[in-house]
Amino acid sequence: MRPVRVGLLGIGTVGGGTFTVLRRNQEEIRRRAGRGIEIAMVADLNADLARQVVGDAAQIVSDARQVIANPDIDVVVELIGGYGVAKALVLEAIAAGKHVVTANKALLAVHGTEIFAAARAKGVIVAFEAAVAGGIPIIKSLREGLTANQIQWVAGIINGTTNFILSEMRDKGLDFDVVLKEAQRLGYAEADPTFDIEGVDAAHKATLLSAIAFGIPVQFDKAHVEGITKLSATDIKYAEQLGYRIKLLGIARRRDSGIELRTHPTLVPMRRLIANVEGAMNAVLVQGDAVGTTMYYGKGAGAEPTASAVVADLVDIARLIDAAPEARVPHLAFQPDSMSALPILPLDEVITSFYLRLRVADKAGVLAKLTGILAEQGISIDAVIQREADEVSGEGNQTDLIILTHDTKEGSMNQALAAMQALPTVLAPIVRLRKEELA
Amino acid sequence: MRPVRVGLLGIGTVGGGTFTVLRRNQEEIRRRAGRGIEIAMVADLNADLARQVVGDAAQIVSDARQVIANPDIDVVVELIGGYGVAKALVLEAIAAGKHVVTANKALLAVHGTEIFAAARAKGVIVAFEAAVAGGIPIIKSLREGLTANQIQWVAGIINGTTNFILSEMRDKGLDFDVVLKEAQRLGYAEADPTFDIEGVDAAHKATLLSAIAFGIPVQFDKAHVEGITKLSATDIKYAEQLGYRIKLLGIARRRDSGIELRTHPTLVPMRRLIANVEGAMNAVLVQGDAVGTTMYYGKGAGAEPTASAVVADLVDIARLIDAAPEARVPHLAFQPDSMSALPILPLDEVITSFYLRLRVADKAGVLAKLTGILAEQGISIDAVIQREADEVSGEGNQTDLIILTHDTKEGSMNQALAAMQALPTVLAPIVRLRKEELA
Repeated sequence: MRPVRVGLLGIGTVGGGTFTVLRRNQEEIRRRAGRGIEIAMVADLNADLARQVVGDAAQIVSDARQVIANPDIDVVVELIGGYGVAKALVLEAIAAGKHVVTANKALLAVHGTEIFAAARAKGVIVAFEAAVAGGIPIIKSLREGLTANQIQWVAGIINGTTNFILSEMRDKGLDFDVVLKEAQRLGYAEADPTFDIEGVDAAHKATLLSAIAFGIPVQFDKAHVEGITKLSATDIKYAEQLGYRIKLLGIARRRDSGIELRTHPTLVPMRRLIANVEGAMNAVLVQGDAVGTTMYYGKGAGAEPTASAVVADLVDIARLIDAAPEARVPHLAFQPDSMSALPILPLDEVITSFYLRLRVADKAGVLAKLTGILAEQGISIDAVIQREADEVSGEGNQTDLIILTHDTKEGSMNQALAAMQALPTVLAPIVRLRKEELA
Repeated sequence: MRPVRVGLLGIGTVGGGTFTVLRRNQEEIRRRAGRGIEIAMVADLNADLARQVVGDAAQIVSDARQVIANPDIDVVVELIGGYGVAKALVLEAIAAGKHVVTANKALLAVHGTEIFAAARAKGVIVAFEAAVAGGIPIIKSLREGLTANQIQWVAGIINGTTNFILSEMRDKGLDFDVVLKEAQRLGYAEADPTFDIEGVDAAHKATLLSAIAFGIPVQFDKAHVEGITKLSATDIKYAEQLGYRIKLLGIARRRDSGIELRTHPTLVPMRRLIANVEGAMNAVLVQGDAVGTTMYYGKGAGAEPTASAVVADLVDIARLIDAAPEARVPHLAFQPDSMSALPILPLDEVITSFYLRLRVADKAGVLAKLTGILAEQGISIDAVIQREADEVSGEGNQTDLIILTHDTKEGSMNQALAAMQALPTVLAPIVRLRKEELA
């Protein structure tokens, strides 16, 4: 069989990795796929850079539209990133009848519905294993490996930058700002780290996972997005003393009334494997009603791990390129006419347990007052830990009070927090973190 | 589209689980597969039991050959187990043009070459996700998710019974025999646990993993198989003190000259996630040249976790049943005309590091003698720990000496062991365990 011909848009980190892996392992890949996979064209605004990477192995152009217009190209690999030109090019490639492979989670989490509909109408595949958790085959596992299950929840460490920062904060007892600078120096965080540290990148990926787990459309606009910038070394330390680690988790959970979709720092029991995923590594937990808990672990970023996912998608396409559409796995795991109507729940409806840290006056009756407020909202308490009081000059004794709650609705917690914060004996803004047992 | 019609051979634990999962999640499965999957016939020697499980939902027969002969059946699911009748039935089903799904690792590890060749000749699929690590989609991940990679090694906890026993031995400081009895009482070990505790079951699975990782034929007869029956609580304790856990690992590793295929108790650094996989859980590490290390974790046995894998195979078949053979993933990941000729290496050629425990006379010069013997064989030492001497009445002081080595060939270690064992100052049989860093 003739080889599958690929056009690469963007020859940066992942593009370079894809080129390298396809070249180095071409024989191994051909032995699996039954046909070769060749990068025939590369488009990059920096044609010199492209030439350095690619040499004479492929035609190099600066205009991506030349790739899309080339009738010999079977698959367009979009590695430009972002919502702008990438969106236009992906839609144009689809319109030209090309299959598309992309690592662009931002694009798919926001514009996925439009893009998948266009691909269906045109009868082409849009594959995106590389968009979530780098080289870990989590999209394939969820879409194909766990098809027997009603998925109950998915929870993942799906942003390596923030996991690196959190690991360092815990390990060295340092504050966020200090570790961020170190991460930037080491190349684990970008010069503008906003998307990572504010949780946006993880939320993009969680949005994609929610869609394929539950058969709902991608709805990034309804996701709760919370990063790690406000996290303090104090809470990491207290959590540790209580047997928990704090991880930035992307979570998608099925409830009877809808789907929770949220990304936020989360206390996780230390004895869970996922609590021990350190540094820039990624891991995704999937809970299915038949299989129970499964976990998928590996490198979530980097040139070759991401290329591993891009090339796996190319091999899938190489197998299916001549097959009838029924042989393909639907983009979002469920047949387009069988998507779920379950809504994304508003944050107030989300159910989780909480970690609260309160700076309170060390006086009799304070704890009774606080627990009374929680009881009024129907929130039951799992544990209360009072730290030793310390005297703050001129203001009497103060102490840190840590409260762990059982599961409650976020809305109830918000009301309780407002009431507690209004107490004169509560001396500083209350710190509130969510906690998941992941059992 | 009409539903895919399935005939089930054997309605024991996994058969019952498959029936239950397909019924409970039939709507979810249809929404994914695009067509229904129906169990139309069930064969079991115990027709009454079958009736209890299945009710009136499917035709029940006591003769499996009636299922195979039924032209309305598309897929035969073999859940009988063993090499005997199961082999005959699988080959007959293939000859009748049925696709086959099986959880039978013993059958495929020993007779896979014959079975896959028959399936190819007849143009049918033999799917076996359930044969390795229960509900964890490790076959799919290796065969399809990591196709970009030259796989370097695979190492897995792929037998839940032995992992439960090892976890209990470590946790409670108990000896093997005691824990085995407890495991049998709790249902974690069978009445005849030989296949599990002698490492045969794990070696069957490692054989299948080696084939799909490297594109070699299944060669169980060349696998090194070693169980946990001789493991003592003493070595688990010493390993722990040195920062290691002992796990029964199935290992397949690529070397330039061939493939290592071996199952044995293994010291693993405690800080690795896989060292913290406890109880009956399974986990498989895969190292690929592009992706780096990935891990897959979940329940490796049980009715519904195994059914999860069986049904995932059925969904794959439902998608591909009408597609050209080129659309299918080859049984052993590589195209049949592109298999590797790399031989399985004899055990003497296997390279690993070692843990040695020697009972020695507490005399000057003993250590020098021992390390001299290791040096003669070119074996370098990573660490030596001498325990406090204890006096054995009438025999002078004795002590336990623990030696950790760097990587060496098994053959060299065997020669060194023979020389050390012959020393009059070595007072008991030397304990030798293998150690893997899994970095």
